[in-house]
Amino acid sequence: MKKYVIVVAGGKGLRMGGEIPKQFIPVKGKPVLMRTLETFHACDPNIELIVVLPVEQRSYWEHLCAEYGFTLPHRIAAGGETRFHSVKNGLALVEEDGVVGVHDGVRPFVSAEVIANCYAQAATLQAVVPVTDVVETVRHLLPEGGSETVSRNDYKLVQTPQVFTVELLKRAYAQDYKPFFTDDASVVEALGQPVHPVSGNRENIKLTTPFDLKVAESLIDD
Amino acid sequence: MKKYVIVVAGGKGLRMGGEIPKQFIPVKGKPVLMRTLETFHACDPNIELIVVLPVEQRSYWEHLCAEYGFTLPHRIAAGGETRFHSVKNGLALVEEDGVVGVHDGVRPFVSAEVIANCYAQAATLQAVVPVTDVVETVRHLLPEGGSETVSRNDYKLVQTPQVFTVELLKRAYAQDYKPFFTDDASVVEALGQPVHPVSGNRENIKLTTPFDLKVAESLIDD
Repeated sequence: MKKYVIVVAGGKGLRMGGEIPKQFIPVKGKPVLMRTLETFHACDPNIELIVVLPVEQRSYWEHLCAEYGFTLPHRIAAGGETRFHSVKNGLALVEEDGVVGVHDGVRPFVSAEVIANCYAQAATLQAVVPVTDVVETVRHLLPEGGSETVSRNDYKLVQTPQVFTVELLKRAYAQDYKPFFTDDASVVEALGQPVHPVSGNRENIKLTTPFDLKVAESLIDD
Repeated sequence: MKKYVIVVAGGKGLRMGGEIPKQFIPVKGKPVLMRTLETFHACDPNIELIVVLPVEQRSYWEHLCAEYGFTLPHRIAAGGETRFHSVKNGLALVEEDGVVGVHDGVRPFVSAEVIANCYAQAATLQAVVPVTDVVETVRHLLPEGGSETVSRNDYKLVQTPQVFTVELLKRAYAQDYKPFFTDDASVVEALGQPVHPVSGNRENIKLTTPFDLKVAESLIDD
């Protein structure tokens, strides 16, 4: 069965407070995006790598790859106006049937177990997302103002890779864009298709703030 | 105005996988609970410290204090069957009017700004909780099975200290225990009293897993 991953690296890097887009920030001496791609390749070298990058970052990325001697084969698709459009562009490079994951470029710490399990389950369940428990208490902000405590056991936090059959994900992304498409699962659900939660790994954090970078450094042993 | 904090340290430590209750685990050479108490004292030495500990851990704690030369004045209340009962026991040591915070013993990284702001706001708003944005996508598990994507912007993650006027919190904890009392805010809300969210700090994590301990080590510079 053919396997793909679309790694979305659309960050403009503004939230990090620096000039460099967050996917290119070095963590323990290597840009985050390279670490993410290596994680997938190390888990399963048969997963074909597709990277979605803003057009204006492409040459910088190629420069980085040369500088770091990064030689993992990967194809590049152009970033779009929203995450939806970026994924859609990446999906256009998926030609064969099989299973396709969509993964955040700034999540280098997804475990091999989670990747393997998501891809294996997606082959039969069609749509699988890794989730973790909510550790904190959750408050729900009410539309009329104010807020209420809700049971955290009724909620899960969703990570990536979100993995689907190619057929299903292509059908989902053939829909018109809607503002409530926050992740791939929500796009697939808009078809009326159920999405199945499986266990994620706690370390699989999304690196978006300087705090996350500090945590990231602590997670790398070398 | 009199200020108190009830630091709840009820952990049996099972989730850490070790023998030692999590509030006693040393982080960079000092037990977490001591770091938490020092954080409050450093922010405002006028905050009176009350620690709630399981009865069977009391002598071990006293031993630790001697061993580490920990001399910050604090009173100790006995842990109860649930968090509700533990807080209630701590609250019994609060004799004067003023403002009282309830804080997790395993959250040593709350910032001085957040502590100061919560106490200041509580004096007028009566009930204040620090919250942070949800970074991940959120799925809501449906009572009938299955799950749905919900807008993460409609949710906040709640930290501690949760700070209240003494009068209000005593009135809240005079209620009978209910299973949906997950935090102090939920107990106060059961009186029909609104709870006001204010900004928490991202580093204010609750140390509950080995992963959190790794993060904690990276957050301490000394």
